[in-house]
Amino acid sequence: MINTGEPPRLHIRIIFGPNAMIGPGKAALLYQIMQKGSISAAGRAMGMSYKRAWMLIENLNAMFREPLVESNRGGPGGGGALLTPIGKEVLRLYRQLQNDAAQSSAPSLEALSLLLKDRNIPE
Amino acid sequence: MINTGEPPRLHIRIIFGPNAMIGPGKAALLYQIMQKGSISAAGRAMGMSYKRAWMLIENLNAMFREPLVESNRGGPGGGGALLTPIGKEVLRLYRQLQNDAAQSSAPSLEALSLLLKDRNIPE
Repeated sequence: MINTGEPPRLHIRIIFGPNAMIGPGKAALLYQIMQKGSISAAGRAMGMSYKRAWMLIENLNAMFREPLVESNRGGPGGGGALLTPIGKEVLRLYRQLQNDAAQSSAPSLEALSLLLKDRNIPE
Repeated sequence: MINTGEPPRLHIRIIFGPNAMIGPGKAALLYQIMQKGSISAAGRAMGMSYKRAWMLIENLNAMFREPLVESNRGGPGGGGALLTPIGKEVLRLYRQLQNDAAQSSAPSLEALSLLLKDRNIPE
């Protein structure tokens, strides 16, 4: 159950307020939009419906001073999308935060891992 | 929407494997058990059913080398429970990890906060 061969990892959600948060899912969606230039393609890459991807983007766009994603909203089939400068900056800062947190908490994470059952016994 | 007067905070879940994780909810449950000496009282304090609290404790107990919580399982009405030494250590390390992560990521968190809409305008 525990030994997947993968090292333990942190799942970090930043909570700004009741309806204002950003975590690994939204960060990955921003990254996919940057890579694929399309909200539908980004959603597909994440196994997410177009509607769900749009909902997350609308939430992010409303949360920050300026939209993070610009799109001509061509519908599920068409239409391109890109990260705005503030979109790129938010993604960069989220990753920075994640890296800083992972690095500084590595000793506690290691100590916790040593307390796990069957930590080093293959399944 | 965004301005609750509360500072932004990190919600950190540690993922050891598919069914092995610990986050703020389980940590708070451990703390409440330590405070109240009872799983049912701890669950109540968190607005959680006895069944749900038990399920989380059983998951935690199976995850680590030794049980984190010892209980005489007196049922919803009675029965005491306490944190074992390893239970206290897991809670301590989780909090340490959370503090380390919060401290090291404070600059990125502040930079992200400055990009929020209406950050300093009261609702």
